Amino acid sequence: MKRQLEICFVPGSLVEPRLKDKTAVVVDVLRASTSICTAIHNRCRQIIPVADPERAFQLREELGGEDILLCGERAGQKIEGFDLGNSPSEYEKRAVADKTLIFASTNGSGAIVKCRAAAETLIGGFVNAAALVDYINSGDRDLLILCSGREGNFALEDTLAAGMLAALLLERDGWELVNDAANAARLLYNSYAPRLEETARNCDHGRYLASLGFGSDITLALAIDSLAVVPVLKEGKLVAA
Amino acid sequence: MKRQLEICFVPGSLVEPRLKDKTAVVVDVLRASTSICTAIHNRCRQIIPVADPERAFQLREELGGEDILLCGERAGQKIEGFDLGNSPSEYEKRAVADKTLIFASTNGSGAIVKCRAAAETLIGGFVNAAALVDYINSGDRDLLILCSGREGNFALEDTLAAGMLAALLLERDGWELVNDAANAARLLYNSYAPRLEETARNCDHGRYLASLGFGSDITLALAIDSLAVVPVLKEGKLVAA
Repeated sequence: MKRQLEICFVPGSLVEPRLKDKTAVVVDVLRASTSICTAIHNRCRQIIPVADPERAFQLREELGGEDILLCGERAGQKIEGFDLGNSPSEYEKRAVADKTLIFASTNGSGAIVKCRAAAETLIGGFVNAAALVDYINSGDRDLLILCSGREGNFALEDTLAAGMLAALLLERDGWELVNDAANAARLLYNSYAPRLEETARNCDHGRYLASLGFGSDITLALAIDSLAVVPVLKEGKLVAA
Repeated sequence: MKRQLEICFVPGSLVEPRLKDKTAVVVDVLRASTSICTAIHNRCRQIIPVADPERAFQLREELGGEDILLCGERAGQKIEGFDLGNSPSEYEKRAVADKTLIFASTNGSGAIVKCRAAAETLIGGFVNAAALVDYINSGDRDLLILCSGREGNFALEDTLAAGMLAALLLERDGWELVNDAANAARLLYNSYAPRLEETARNCDHGRYLASLGFGSDITLALAIDSLAVVPVLKEGKLVAA
């Protein structure tokens, strides 16, 4: 009996019952996955994903204390009153070490919140593909990879990362792809693999970020296996697995 | 200035403002597009797409008259009290000629209703690709192709038909693909083109239809250019363009 791997291209397509007893991986290459992996790598205490900025402000009040940072973006830009935006370059050790990060991005944090119904929720991107595949393969659950997409729409860079994870797991044996999106993602990854960074620069979201001056974030997000971390959601908080 | 072509993989991703001033093509290869093209080819009077069976029964009462057929499916099967299901083989001339069809399918009819905000809404599939491309290319609007998907999810067969339409339009010059989904669909079509029918049989929806005994519908749906019709929505009713 092989373990089943399915992919979902947009959060709006996902209904909670599909997550039952599964491991979920949320992919938001540009840029939440990359920023979250960077923050965990740089020893933040925990990251609390929330659906929107209003909830972030409210939660800071509820938690109180000094060691809290509000992080995230709307339309790609840091939110007024927040401490950090969503550029992975901001999540360096001196900024985030030992801090609690409340995280509200447009696509990724909503997707993570949606995956709370899974047995286990992980965060993945190009930066932690190998670490993530090792971790997932050592478990025994079926897998659903949720691409965060872009404002409800299909995003090629997330699909390529999901396809890469699928391709790497298939190399381990014991896995099968079980839906159309998983098969399409693997084929797209195989086709674009020789030019991933160029593709990410030319996709919808990559061009938008470059237009805002965040072109260097794409390089960081496409640095395959640069971070050996596996962010996992425990009681609503992302920590190192 | 090239005409812009975008693709949307699931109706849930589409917000109405994106349709403004555009031609929309709704693609539901298995099976609404194929059944609708067959019915128009076989000289039905008109087809009125509705979002659900309840609305179909209600509309029949409102319209009155003898020449009305209730058509469509839930879970692939004909709806109790309906005249026809959603198998294109049912839409033969002696059944549909001169009739008004009220049409409620799970994926396609909702997608059509959603596209009412477009300047013009057409129905497309493999069966009418060439006729559709001729018609669209002779106009001057930008184009949005909406894949109906399957219960909110990505459907490979719709994506391949959308990718085929994109590839055919690009051959005509004067067109550019403007979103990630359009580029992905074209690449997927180019990859699967040598084995379209086999791919449609093995995709999520194809396997489901075969399990219900509708395997021959897949052959009908993959009969490229078998029907030289362009269904267009006029005042909420589908007729020949």
